Amino acid sequence: MLFATKTLSRIQPTSRLFAAHFARCQPPRFRSNVHTSTHRIIFSGIQPTGIPHLGNYLGALSNWVKLQNTADASDELLFSIVGWHALTLPQNPRQLSEARMDMLAVLLAIGLDPRRSIIFHQDDNPNHTELAWIFNCITPMGKLRRMTTWKSRLAASKNQGDDADIDEAGLNLGLFAYPVLQAADILAYKLRLIPCLERHLQATHVPVGDDQTQHLELSRVIADQFNRNFKADKPLFPLPTQLITPSKRILSLRDPSSKMSKSSPDTSSRILLTDTSSQIAQKIRSAVTDSIKGITYDPLNRPGTANLLAMLAACNNDEDVRETARRYEGTGKNHGDLKKDLTEAVEEMVRRPREEFERLSKERGYLEQVAREGAQKARVKSEATMVEVRKRVGLS
Amino acid sequence: MLFATKTLSRIQPTSRLFAAHFARCQPPRFRSNVHTSTHRIIFSGIQPTGIPHLGNYLGALSNWVKLQNTADASDELLFSIVGWHALTLPQNPRQLSEARMDMLAVLLAIGLDPRRSIIFHQDDNPNHTELAWIFNCITPMGKLRRMTTWKSRLAASKNQGDDADIDEAGLNLGLFAYPVLQAADILAYKLRLIPCLERHLQATHVPVGDDQTQHLELSRVIADQFNRNFKADKPLFPLPTQLITPSKRILSLRDPSSKMSKSSPDTSSRILLTDTSSQIAQKIRSAVTDSIKGITYDPLNRPGTANLLAMLAACNNDEDVRETARRYEGTGKNHGDLKKDLTEAVEEMVRRPREEFERLSKERGYLEQVAREGAQKARVKSEATMVEVRKRVGLS
Repeated sequence: MLFATKTLSRIQPTSRLFAAHFARCQPPRFRSNVHTSTHRIIFSGIQPTGIPHLGNYLGALSNWVKLQNTADASDELLFSIVGWHALTLPQNPRQLSEARMDMLAVLLAIGLDPRRSIIFHQDDNPNHTELAWIFNCITPMGKLRRMTTWKSRLAASKNQGDDADIDEAGLNLGLFAYPVLQAADILAYKLRLIPCLERHLQATHVPVGDDQTQHLELSRVIADQFNRNFKADKPLFPLPTQLITPSKRILSLRDPSSKMSKSSPDTSSRILLTDTSSQIAQKIRSAVTDSIKGITYDPLNRPGTANLLAMLAACNNDEDVRETARRYEGTGKNHGDLKKDLTEAVEEMVRRPREEFERLSKERGYLEQVAREGAQKARVKSEATMVEVRKRVGLS
Repeated sequence: MLFATKTLSRIQPTSRLFAAHFARCQPPRFRSNVHTSTHRIIFSGIQPTGIPHLGNYLGALSNWVKLQNTADASDELLFSIVGWHALTLPQNPRQLSEARMDMLAVLLAIGLDPRRSIIFHQDDNPNHTELAWIFNCITPMGKLRRMTTWKSRLAASKNQGDDADIDEAGLNLGLFAYPVLQAADILAYKLRLIPCLERHLQATHVPVGDDQTQHLELSRVIADQFNRNFKADKPLFPLPTQLITPSKRILSLRDPSSKMSKSSPDTSSRILLTDTSSQIAQKIRSAVTDSIKGITYDPLNRPGTANLLAMLAACNNDEDVRETARRYEGTGKNHGDLKKDLTEAVEEMVRRPREEFERLSKERGYLEQVAREGAQKARVKSEATMVEVRKRVGLS
């Protein structure tokens, strides 16, 4: 199945990360039934698994803020901290609890505005798990078995074991079933629009685009199945479609052959949004580059240098990385200069969010209030969907 | 794993159907930590899939009423109409919606008392699906794959298809995952006690005892896993244990080699609780027996006759069926007499419930009030569990 996509003109699609996109073209089956206004509902989720690093920020979170700030007045935006998804992997409960509140502080610190967007903890809205159960009952096992994320988990569990019979038996049902919960996350708000569920923050060995695309496709399959099983005067669920936003694939500072990752044991491989200026300077100073003189953008042969240039370009208001590189041509500048420029640019970019995070972290009462109010809005909105869902399946 | 069971002295265990039982013996690991009062919480569920027949009533529902009426004042009883489980098989939404309210009327009509017991629709309490999701994340796929109910579904789907590759791929996730929802149904109320989830009303080809025992065992495994993963000063969940109650295996009136079943196409094979006296008389008159003269209790060689005797014994205040049979010995009475006696006894037994059902069915407002109040009580009770669950897993 292909998604009918249409990029937002305000936001330049520059790279591999899919985020949220609105497509006016509904499949023909629904064209006549679904309202065709340009009113958009945009849903994105992120797991509460620690302070985001620059890869997360430049790759996804900064786009959320741009989306919010460039959205039409009629657009609705939902940003969710998806704690139930985090449970699919073992977590330290105390750390998870802290990360849950930290992530809320981060979202506010980077500029998401609870007066404009609905910002909430997924686990504060039981409509998600209720709808997920109903979707469980119309989702074939075979569809889930074909998910790339599941296959990767299976492969990883097989590699770890000495025994040939270590297969899916030891993996938990949550890992198998979470794409259905994702579909519920999205469709609870009757999205005509599109999610950028940041599952990739966790499943680092899966190309981001792939699992996002596949999971979104599953949401469409489930929505369509529900519409066909539980007919009424019109289909209940619009089929969610993708929104392409600009995104960067930021690489590890220590190993530019892999993505910047929160799970790397080498903490100097990533810059956290809360790093101090001296931490930022130190990490960039020790970044792996190459021994070629001068600065050129050559991702294949000079991945470390290209990564620094890409980060600098992203910090420079998302300019084209080739434009950034061009400014170094013929100047005799070398890696030291580039690292100095990047250090300044990163510091400039994270200073405000870092200060805001520091301030907000101490305002526990305020954070709880934002979470409470966000959850309340999310519940009201999804309850409207659920009333109709319960009626259609016969449970009301 | 074996269950430590202890029968209730008030209720004689007479037959194959397991229901609810309370065991004082906790496994050694928990003995010192779990409160050891005799306060019991008893949970039972039934699917809203049509008016119960005599097999359901004599096999399970009548025991619920006896449990309620013989329970200690300190015992808590919960009886749930488990609509979310019904969704695992295709349902006609309009019929399901009616059956959902009809089942509530039936439970009240047979004598369950909303002032004494918590009677509620499962789907009115989202704590069940929330807890099920959390349990999904600690339940290995392998455990679910070994469920007899799942294997039966798999086997059935393989038999139906012409193709060798028709396997689990087409079965929905709900069929695979529902034992986890059952565990949540039970453990949401922190049961030290035991469920008699009437799944067998649906999965008629699975011996009742087997799937009940296996599902309850899974609940114990999940409870134990949660306690070990999310330690605190004491384990959160007691391990639910079985309560053995008397039960009858009532057979089809048309084919005494199989159980009385709601899904049999021959409606004269079963007597519904709402059947009129003439319907009852007609169905018993046409019941298959044998051509042997006289009445003796011989289930192997005279299954039809034995079935009529078993029903008569059950109607006679659960007397021993051999006692019932003895009254026919040497009297020269034959099948016609037995059928006449049984017709009178069944009519006597169902008259009150049938009248009550008729009356209650018209009291839609009252039924809705009972459902609302039951759900409220169930939510309050399970919310106490969920507050602690969320805290322990790190989502609060």
